[in-house]
Formats: sequence, structure tokens, C-alpha cells
Amino acid sequence: MFRATEDQDFYELLSPTLLPKASGFLWNEMMMVHMNCRGYAVAQFMQPEPAKYSHAPNLEAKTFMQPEQPYYAHHPGRFVFVKDEENESVFSAPYEPVRVKTDSYSFALGQSRIVWKVEHQGVLIEMSLSLPKEDPLELWRVKVTNVSQQKRKLSVYPYFTVGYMSWMNQSGEYLEDLQAIVCSSVTPYQKYQDYDKIKNFRDKTFLIAEQAPTSWEVNQEAFEGEGGITCPSALEQTELAKGDARYETPVAAMQYRMELAAGEAREYRFLFGPARDEREIAQIRETYFGSGEDGFAAAEREYDRYIREGRGCMTISTPDKDLDLFVNRWLPRQIYYHGQTNRLTTDPQTRNYLQDHMGMSYLKPQVARASFLTALSQQKANGAMPDGIVLHPDAELKYINQVPHTDHCVWLPICLSTYLDETGDYSILEEKVAYADSKQAEPVYVHIDKAMRWLMNDRDERGLNYINQGDWCDPMNMVGYKGKGVSGWLTIATAYAFQVWADICDNSGRPEVAREYRASAEETNAAVNRYLWDGEWYARGITDDNIVFGVSKDQEGRIFINPQGWSMLSGAADDEKREKLMQAVREQLETPYGVEKLAPSYTAMREDVGRVTQKHPGSAENGAVYNHAAAFYIYALYAVGEQEDAFRLLRKMLPGPDVEDIVQRGQLPVFIPNYYRGAYRQFPRTAGRSSHLFNTGTVPWVYRCLIDGLFGVQGTKDGIRVNPQLPSHWNEATVTREFRGATLHVEILRDAAVSQTEVYAEGELLPDGVLRNMQPGQTYRVQVKLRVGV
Amino acid sequence: MFRATEDQDFYELLSPTLLPKASGFLWNEMMMVHMNCRGYAVAQFMQPEPAKYSHAPNLEAKTFMQPEQPYYAHHPGRFVFVKDEENESVFSAPYEPVRVKTDSYSFALGQSRIVWKVEHQGVLIEMSLSLPKEDPLELWRVKVTNVSQQKRKLSVYPYFTVGYMSWMNQSGEYLEDLQAIVCSSVTPYQKYQDYDKIKNFRDKTFLIAEQAPTSWEVNQEAFEGEGGITCPSALEQTELAKGDARYETPVAAMQYRMELAAGEAREYRFLFGPARDEREIAQIRETYFGSGEDGFAAAEREYDRYIREGRGCMTISTPDKDLDLFVNRWLPRQIYYHGQTNRLTTDPQTRNYLQDHMGMSYLKPQVARASFLTALSQQKANGAMPDGIVLHPDAELKYINQVPHTDHCVWLPICLSTYLDETGDYSILEEKVAYADSKQAEPVYVHIDKAMRWLMNDRDERGLNYINQGDWCDPMNMVGYKGKGVSGWLTIATAYAFQVWADICDNSGRPEVAREYRASAEETNAAVNRYLWDGEWYARGITDDNIVFGVSKDQEGRIFINPQGWSMLSGAADDEKREKLMQAVREQLETPYGVEKLAPSYTAMREDVGRVTQKHPGSAENGAVYNHAAAFYIYALYAVGEQEDAFRLLRKMLPGPDVEDIVQRGQLPVFIPNYYRGAYRQFPRTAGRSSHLFNTGTVPWVYRCLIDGLFGVQGTKDGIRVNPQLPSHWNEATVTREFRGATLHVEILRDAAVSQTEVYAEGELLPDGVLRNMQPGQTYRVQVKLRVGV
Repeated sequence: MFRATEDQDFYELLSPTLLPKASGFLWNEMMMVHMNCRGYAVAQFMQPEPAKYSHAPNLEAKTFMQPEQPYYAHHPGRFVFVKDEENESVFSAPYEPVRVKTDSYSFALGQSRIVWKVEHQGVLIEMSLSLPKEDPLELWRVKVTNVSQQKRKLSVYPYFTVGYMSWMNQSGEYLEDLQAIVCSSVTPYQKYQDYDKIKNFRDKTFLIAEQAPTSWEVNQEAFEGEGGITCPSALEQTELAKGDARYETPVAAMQYRMELAAGEAREYRFLFGPARDEREIAQIRETYFGSGEDGFAAAEREYDRYIREGRGCMTISTPDKDLDLFVNRWLPRQIYYHGQTNRLTTDPQTRNYLQDHMGMSYLKPQVARASFLTALSQQKANGAMPDGIVLHPDAELKYINQVPHTDHCVWLPICLSTYLDETGDYSILEEKVAYADSKQAEPVYVHIDKAMRWLMNDRDERGLNYINQGDWCDPMNMVGYKGKGVSGWLTIATAYAFQVWADICDNSGRPEVAREYRASAEETNAAVNRYLWDGEWYARGITDDNIVFGVSKDQEGRIFINPQGWSMLSGAADDEKREKLMQAVREQLETPYGVEKLAPSYTAMREDVGRVTQKHPGSAENGAVYNHAAAFYIYALYAVGEQEDAFRLLRKMLPGPDVEDIVQRGQLPVFIPNYYRGAYRQFPRTAGRSSHLFNTGTVPWVYRCLIDGLFGVQGTKDGIRVNPQLPSHWNEATVTREFRGATLHVEILRDAAVSQTEVYAEGELLPDGVLRNMQPGQTYRVQVKLRVGV
Repeated sequence: MFRATEDQDFYELLSPTLLPKASGFLWNEMMMVHMNCRGYAVAQFMQPEPAKYSHAPNLEAKTFMQPEQPYYAHHPGRFVFVKDEENESVFSAPYEPVRVKTDSYSFALGQSRIVWKVEHQGVLIEMSLSLPKEDPLELWRVKVTNVSQQKRKLSVYPYFTVGYMSWMNQSGEYLEDLQAIVCSSVTPYQKYQDYDKIKNFRDKTFLIAEQAPTSWEVNQEAFEGEGGITCPSALEQTELAKGDARYETPVAAMQYRMELAAGEAREYRFLFGPARDEREIAQIRETYFGSGEDGFAAAEREYDRYIREGRGCMTISTPDKDLDLFVNRWLPRQIYYHGQTNRLTTDPQTRNYLQDHMGMSYLKPQVARASFLTALSQQKANGAMPDGIVLHPDAELKYINQVPHTDHCVWLPICLSTYLDETGDYSILEEKVAYADSKQAEPVYVHIDKAMRWLMNDRDERGLNYINQGDWCDPMNMVGYKGKGVSGWLTIATAYAFQVWADICDNSGRPEVAREYRASAEETNAAVNRYLWDGEWYARGITDDNIVFGVSKDQEGRIFINPQGWSMLSGAADDEKREKLMQAVREQLETPYGVEKLAPSYTAMREDVGRVTQKHPGSAENGAVYNHAAAFYIYALYAVGEQEDAFRLLRKMLPGPDVEDIVQRGQLPVFIPNYYRGAYRQFPRTAGRSSHLFNTGTVPWVYRCLIDGLFGVQGTKDGIRVNPQLPSHWNEATVTREFRGATLHVEILRDAAVSQTEVYAEGELLPDGVLRNMQPGQTYRVQVKLRVGV
């Protein structure tokens, strides 16, 4: 019912009812479209804040992307109604809104294209969606083929939702000279000061047809009639009524009447998107459908090249072919999306921005470098990082970025270390950057020293870091807002950040400073063990009222994942503690869908702890398998050599190949969502479901789990350390690694003759496993012999 | 296809497809529900800002009520699915979502109830909706009668939309002990400061059933299955699955299986609404369905009494029976709604608040009196009135109330004069009231003197009033924001306000002051005639850049209604000008649906004039028949004795009795909407359509048109002036007028023997037409003889 295509270019679903919410996404420099297998779509473009050109049927709230997108009959979509003119039967491709079970169905997600093939009663409809690299518009092909043995008389109606554009003004009409349906609106505003902004908005929605349609309808109500969206009355007529919309909900529907001989096919192409005015629409028409070169096909090719630029730095071949496909094709694409678009927001959260560019270090290190400098230019001279990074002159901090969080500094050395590992470009540390509140430019290393000092100072007398209104991943904005509550995780993370920064200081000629950071890390770990170790695991924090929480006596929120994993990284957990906490995680947090962020899920606000959650999947607070947190735990397991638990949890993050598992999660394995539903022990029915949100800091960490952990091909200052940690049931794997311009072919094999990992480069044993002096343009062959068993 | 019922208690529609958007509304102290004939509903309750308990299928924007409410398949509604268990056929009452054309259909809007009767294949479904007086919840009856000749096995499924409650948390389940579906959510918030507010919100939605259902479903997706909302898959099963919703869209659907003998009936009753917690739901259950007295029926009766308290002060009988019904029953109800609920907003616009209580002067003068004092307590000591009146300690000025308008002072004497005419209570002028920015309490007359002085001072060197960012009814916030532009209408209105205030000063022993105001009015009128008379009508204003607009050389926005009508009231227009401007209005602004606010409609922003409109019906700016403005023009016509034009336009404001006319407008004549679509000469297809919004300052002005104008029974300081202005095609009318506790029976007849109106009280001629010395509790008989012809 779903599969990778033979050429592995697409992931394909063969039934719209198996995974009714299965979806993929395309994006370019200006927009993204999240396309559902049944034809529903969520599309946004930047002007500069996210805006829509295909709207809901009512006045929708402007907000960030919502998890588990609710679909409903009039949800925005792109459909093709098909009527057999001889017997009046109607179906729609891909599936909505008529919901006829067609003779065959395929929904194929490609890297740069989404393609449907739907065949019903001898008519094949092929639909494909792509984007240009830069313009905010959709490139649609609709191909109709008569695959029956006789001549067919058909009417085919491409239908694009325009929806409720604006309460202030909306209308639509067909413009003969543009061969387009053009719908107009005015973004509502009430203060005259806003007019200068909105008057330049792309407030028109167009559907440009390459070929003139037989007829059209721009009036949603007239199109539907009493038949409704599932059975539009307009299809009963020979032709559509060529109506317009005047403060009525517009739609972009066109009709093509045709007679097709057996085997005959017709292809129609469309452009759908937003525009400022008719002049711009005319220019778009000329660019894509003008005389001369086929601009439409050229745009598809250019977009495909653009997407393929975002390829990863590693190609694997393992016994797990689903994993191979995901790691080689889809994971880098998701990392690239984050780094290239900054999640299509003008004010990404600081921790997200830094981690997204940590991922970009593997794909486009120059982009990562520039972004780190941008982030540091918004640091305050006292070392504090802001809650969001402003990327557009008109942008301001919105939503959650208005709530002060205390963790942002932690991410600076952690994310930068990946960039340094991958590029060896230590010159970035000497780059001079000014501060948000001071023009005095200072080197990057001073910025980070200040960030570390900020973390050292933002602590109580016990040496624990204040949480203020929240830190990372467990939104708890009432634990410490009075200024006394502390975060267990953040204190541990601070110790880890000190260690990472100490390593960088060592590598950049500051051994004295490094020693100081290491000492600070040790002191911090000691405080953590003194105040936060609960006997079997680490507590999550201590409130303003001095209540320790995330501990064994709690009924809900008894154990949190984040302090556990990070304590292994920071060195707080010794072997004994590590064994205990790993056992607690296995017993209380691990589920068939991954490791939960906390358990048991909160079912009500605990007033004495005062947490405030952003999302409540499974009707319980915070109970989800947050993949971002899970990835960190897995990363920590690899860091301490716990490769069996690490691989088991890593593999749970990706759906399948078990059909039931994919059905429960509800999505194809083309991206890692930010969460799967958790609360597995409380609400098993819904556990495992995907959020369907593809914005997540998870993906660079999964890549690091693979590179630093599973396949062990992590960069160092002067080379690459080869140290694979394959799961015990794998006997072999090969990895091709692109690194600073060189190519490394690594063959990993189990060998009963070795008792510990041995690494050979071009036949010679590398005593410390590090391959040095690699030359750009050169290829190196490495053999790794692993001992048998764990 | 529609009619008043025989007892005239209801207005009834007999086909759901004739007026698919026909609707009525019910309200109480805490909520309102706007109910569509097909079962769709828009309901809001106050906590303290408007909130919902039955939601859209997506994240809807929080906003004021939208015109021409868009309906769509998953629009919130209240439906009853009916399945014949023997042949599996399904229909739904009242019509949505299955849309079966039933054998019979009736949608009846009553004063305090909305009732449907739908019969199909021998099954009669009667549904009724009422409200309690105070609790925010809906009282529903669903009665099933077997009207066929044989026994029937039926499943009946009441279905109440819950919808997408919150992205933060939503769930639902059936609670056995409450016999209720209870859906829970958390209003999204991100700042911990908001938690204290939202934690007390009524964030649960309940459906309490008096009788335990056979089965239920709380999960929308499970209920619909692949059949969708129009043909839910769950109905294919013998029983519903008794599911729950966990961060899934909830629904409140119940099943009652029954066998009914021929003629047998069952009635089910339900409570649907919002609650804080389960304890509150249990209390509600006890109140309405507890043992002892029938609380449900008692609440219906109490609500009916409450609504009937809002009766008018006049009962008419004329040759126009539709008008009689509207004026006697529906118009006072709409006035009462405004005065009693303040439009269910916590910050009504100042001009709305004053005019709503101008209307309340006829119904509940004590409420009006208190409201005028409330408004004046928010005046500044410099005389300026705020843009909105804050009615709740937590409220703040929102939306349009953040844009400074300059007209609010004008309404003080105008609205107060009605209160004085109706009550004779001149003591209000001596009430001492403090200011928003000063605790120094001063008498009301000083407040209004200051307001008048504020208007005198807020003028340019020509004596024309500044418009700043807008005045009334023609939203134009860029005409004068630089501080130079002036408003033609506002200047004229100021002159009128001076006249009205001068009359009040005369009546309250300040003749000297009155003379001064009259002199000011004359000066103002002179300035108006000097700078704003365009030759055939008055201009609308002059911009910051000294461009006069609303004049004959303009292509769009050539003539505005407001300056024309008010110039007749202020005395600016002499007879010659009046004739000219009335002719211009007839030619350019009058349409079959009333008089437009301006013409031709703007189709684009005129940058040199810079108007900013709130609504753009007919896809053109400001082109509507704004009934509020139209009512004012009609009022002015009566004031100057132009009763033929006045009546013709007044009658156009009310739909019907012509079926085609009602169909074009799309609503039953139970309320006057704030607008009918205009732009009649540009976009005739859509002209006449109702906004379906019942919030409008129109209604008190229509009442004044009737009382002061058409029927001529206006109060004066010491009596009532009888001076009917019947249209020439009426030969008679009778009016019963309640006035300061007395009752007046007025018989109006044309009499060929008189050459001018003669008024007789108890047989005696009243030389000035004023009946004085009426005693409370007494009844007076008045005969009016009108000359024949105009």
C-alpha cells in the first residue's frame, strides 16, 4: 500500500484511505506548500510574514503552523473533477472531495515534485506539483489519458481553492487577456499607518491557464449549488456559468471539454499563487507560458537542481534499506529546508536558528558560518542571547519569543563545535562582531566567553541555573518566574556547554581558559549530583517554592528525558548512575514509537509546579515523543558507547517498514515530525501519531547521531575520526563520506579475528582511528574491522 | 414560501432553498445565537470578551461579527440525523448537512423561540431552540412523531458541533454520571500572566441529555468516516461506537433508537453550552432536569417573559400589514436587544452606545438614563468623548475604537433630546458626573456645554470641523490625519447638534445660552454653504491637501448621502438647495433597496483622497445601502415635511412583501440589517443582499422616523405633539401610543373637508396639535383629519 519507487526517487502511497493524512512538502525561497495525499493543501508565502493565497472558508486565525492539521470538507485543496459526458458519472482526483474509490491510485512524494496517478473507468489523471526556485507560485500539470479501448467524451475541471480572502474586500473574475482567474482582496487593517504596508501586499490570487478553458466559474456558491462541495451542481450543466464573485467566496475552477480517442492524452498546465496586480500576473504568464523557451519546464528543472544542491555529506549502504533511503535522500533534504528557509519565519527562536545551522554545517557551511555571525550580532554585551533572531528589518519577536527563556547561550558552543568539526575553520573564532546594544566589535570567541559567563552568573547560591519563564523543550513558564526556581536540565546542559567550549579553547590555543571551563563543568556537575539526583534518575528542576519535581514521588511528570541524556554528556552521571537512569528510561519513557519527553503525562495543571505547555498531544500535557529531545538522548547514548539502546531508539524515530506502524503514525517516512503522540501508557489508542509538522530541531541531531555515532565518521580539527558503532545485528555497512572536499569510502565488516575496532586506511592500520592530511579532490579507502557481538 | 403565522407570533419560511441564508437570533444576558434556517449557527458568550463553545473546524480568528456570514460544509450547526432502520434511508433536520428535500419544511422565527418542523416519509421532526434568561446555554427540544400509518423503527441522532476548540489542548468524552458529552480545552496562552485569567474560563462544552442515549460519539472523524459530514459512516452501524476524542476534533452526537407505533411521539430535551468544570455541569443538569419542578420549561417561560418586557411604546394598524407586524413586534425587539446587551461587547463605540440608548428611551428609560451618565463619566474634562465606552473593568478599547474619530460629541444632545422628549425628565441635566480625567463632578448640562465647545474649537480657520482619522459611517481615515482635512458632514452635524442643544437649553431655563448656540449654528451653516455647496448637493469634505471631494467632478464617490440629509436638519439647505439635493439623491443614490451611502462606489483607493473603508460590499468601497445613514436621511425628510420620499425610502428598508425582493435580500423581515448591498448601478447582480448583521444604529432612528415622522406622536416637554405624515396613498391608520404612563388612541383619517391637518382630543380641536396634561393610567382618544392628497 506504500513503497519507495524502483528508482527510489519517490516515496509512494497506493491508497488514499490507508493514510488519509499522509503528506509531503515542497518549499522554495519564498513559500512552502504542505500537500496532503487526498488533495488538501496548506500553503504559505512570505510578505514578509507568512501569508496565504488559498484560504479556509472562514476567517482563519493567523498563527504558527498547527500540529495534526485538521482537515474538513472545505479545507483548501487542489482537485480535478472528471465527468464522463456520456454517462454523467463524476469522480475527483486525487480523491477529495468526491471520495470515489478509484480503480487505482498513487500518491508519490519526490524530492522536488509531488505526483498523483489516478485511474478510474478508463480515464487516467496524472497531476504533478512543483515550484519555481524563487517565485511564490505553484506549477501544476494535469494530464488526462484515455486508457480505455473506445473514444471518450470528457469534461475535466481543475479546481483550486481560493476561499474566504478577507472580510474587507474580496472578489474574483476571469480575465480574458490574461487567460486567468484573478481574485482580489484587501488585507484588513484599521489604522491608516498600516495602509502603506498592506497596499503593496500580494493580495490577489491567480490561476493562470496555459490553454484557454472551455468555461470557468469564480463563484464558490454558484459552483457548488445544492450539491455542495462533494457533488457540485455546476457539473450537471454542459458548461460552467462563467460567473464572477463580488464579496462572495471566490474559487478558481475551469472546465476543459474534450473528445479523446483510445490511448489519446492531453496535458494542461497551470500557475497558481499570489500577486500584487494584473501587471505582475501578465509578467508571470509571459515568464512561464510566453513564446520562446518553455519557461514552465525550465522552472521545474531549475527547482530540481536547487533542491538537489541540499544533498548530504554521507551515503550509506546497510542491511536496513529503509534507513539507507531515508538517510541518503530525505534527511538531508529536511536539514536543507531548515537551513535554507529558516522555517519561513522572520524571527526564528534562537535555539532553533543555531541548531538549524548546525545542520547546515554539513550541507552549506558558508551559510552556517554567516548565520552564526548573524546570531552573535544580536547578542547583548552582557552575554545574554535574545529569544529570537530577527531576520527581516520589519520583523519583531512574536508568540513564544516574547516569553523569556534562559537556555539560548548553551547552544552557542554546541552548535559551533559541529561547524568546526566539519570545516576545521577555526578562523571564525577571530571574526569581529558587534553586539545588539554596543557597536564595539569583538571576536567570536569573546562573544562565547561572555555567553558562558552569563550562564555562570545566572545561578542561585547552590550553583543551579535559573529557569525564569522557561528553557528548552518542556515549556514550563511558571516554575521559576519569581526568580528563584532552577532548571535541572539547564544546569546539566551548562556543564556540557563548558566542556564543549573547553575543547574548542584547547584546539584554538587557549589551554588555560580551557582548564577553567573544565573546572567549572566539574563544579556544576557536583551541584547537579548533590541537589538533583533522585536515587534512580535526575530531577527536572526546583520551583520558586523549593519543590523538586520530576522525581519518583510525583504522580505525574515523574521522569523527564532531558536531564537523563544530558547528564551522560556532561559527565555528571558516573557508570552506576548511568545504568540506573537508562533502566528508568527504558521502563518509564520508552514506547514502541520512541522515547517520551516525560511520563506520566500531566492530565491537569499542577499548581505547585506551574508548568505551561505549548502542546498537549494525547490530551495530556507534554506527554509526546518529542523527537528533538529523543534525538539528544540517542546522541548521548552514542557518546558514551551505549550503541544498542541508541540504535533501537533511533530506528523507532523513523516509521516502518511495518505497515501497522506506519498507519498508526499516519505519515510516509519522508520527514521526521516534531513529535509522535506519547502518553503511551495512559492513552494507547492515539500514541504514535505524527504531528505532521516538519519544522523540528530533531534533524541535525539525527544527522549527528549518524555521523558522530552510528557510522563514526566525525570530523576533528585535523582529520576524521573513524569509529563506527553498528548495532550488534548488523555485520556490515559501507559509508561514502564527503569531507572538506575529499571523499572517504568506508567499508565496515565484522571480523571474528579482532577484539576491538581496527581502522585501516589504504591498507594501513590507524592507531588512533584518525585519518589525517586528507586532500581536497582525493578519494580515500578505509576498512573497519569490528569485533563480533556487542 | 414564507409568511407570518396566523397568530403572528412567528415569521415562517417554508423552503430551505429559497433563502438558504435566512436566519434569526436569540440572546440573553450572557450570550447570543444567530441561527440559520438550515441548522448552521453562530453563537457567542461573554467571559468577559466574546467566546465560543461551538467552533469552526479550524483555528478561527477572534474578531467582531462578520457580514454575510460564510457557511460551508463543516460550519458549526445543530442537526438531527434520522435513519429508518428498516430501509437504511437517512435524512437530516432541519436540512443540513444531508440536504434531502424533505416532504415538508418550516422554519419559524419567534420572539423567544426558533422552531423547525420537518416531515419526511412519515416522520415528523420538530426542533426548537430557546435560551434561559441568564445562563449561557441553549435549550433544545427534539420531538419525533410517527405520522405514517405503520409502526416505524428509527434511529435519531442529535448532532451538535463542537469543532476545533484549541491547538493547546482538546478532548471529549461521555460522562455517564452527568449523562452528558463533555469536551475540554485550554484557551491558548503563552505568557504566564494570562494563566490566571484563562484558568477560570468556561473552556468546556457540554451536551446534557435529559434521557440517556442508546449510544454516542465524541470523535468527529470516527463519526464521519469516509462518508463525510454529508453522509456519516457511523450511521451505517447499529449503534455509535461510544468513542472519545484525544486532541482530536470533538463532536457531540447521540443516538436514540426507538420503535414508534403509528401516531406515537417522543420528545427529547438537551442543554448545550459552555462550562468551567464538571461540578458546574452537574449543577446545570440539576437546575434544568433535576427532580421537582420542570426547570427546563420554567426557563423557557421566564425567557419569553424577559423578551416580552422589551415591547415598544406604539402599536399601529395601517393599510400595510407587513409594516404593522414589523413595527409592532420585531422592531422593538431589535431595539431592546441593543439596549439590553450593548451588542455583547465590552467596549461599544461611543456613538453606537448613545444611539442604542436613545432607542432604549422608548422601552426602558431608566436604563437609557443610567447609560447616558455612564458615557458622560468617561468624557474628558476638555469636553472630548472617547471612541468607545468601557463597560467592564477588564475591557479595553479594541479594533476601530483605537482609531481616533471626531464625531462622538455630536451625538450627546441628539440622543439626549429623545430621552427628554419621551420622559420629560429634565432632572437628568442637573445630575452631577465626574470626568475620566478629573474627579470634579459637574452637572450633565455642563458636560454637554463642554462637548459643544470642544466641537467649536476643533475647527479650522474656515469654521469647518476637522475629520482627523474619521467621523461617522464613511470610514475615511486618511482624509485628515495630518490635522488639516475637514468633514463636511461633521460640520453640518455640529450645526444640527447646536440647534438641538439650544432647544434643550430653552426648555431648561437657559434662553441666553440657547441664543448663543443658535447663533453658532447659523455661522456654521454659513461656512458650510460657502465652502461645501457644489451646485447641486453638498460635498463630503476637504482633504489635508485641500481637495474637495464628494463633488460633481469626481468619477467615484461623487455624492454622499450624509451631508445631504443632515443639511436639511441643520437648516443649511434652503428650499432651493433642498429640492436640488433631493433630486440628486433620487437620481444617483436611490435604488430598489434603499438609498446608498455614496455613489458611484469606489472600485479602488483614491490616493489623493485617502479613504479607508471597513467594509467593501459589492466589491466596491462603501457602496452599500447603509441603513443607518439611510434612516437619517429619511428622518430629515420627515423633519422638513417631505413625507412622500420619506415613506418610499422607509418602506424599501424592510424586505417584501414581494417574494423576489425577499429572495434577493436573503432574509426574513424580522430585523433590519446594518446594510443591503449597494453599488446598484455598477454591480446590479448582488445589490440588495442583506449583511445578515443585526447590530446597527439604524433601529432607533427608524423608530424615531415612525414616532416623530410618519405617525407624528412625538413627546414634547409638557405633552405630545400629534402630526401624522401619512403617505398620500394611505387613507387611514390607527396608533396606540404609551406615553409617560398614559395611553393615547389615535385615529387618523383623510377628510376631504379639511385643507390642513386637524387634531381633536376627545372631540376638541387642539390648535397647536399638542395634547397636554396627560395623566398616568389614563387613556386618551385622538382623531386626526388629514387633507386629501399630498
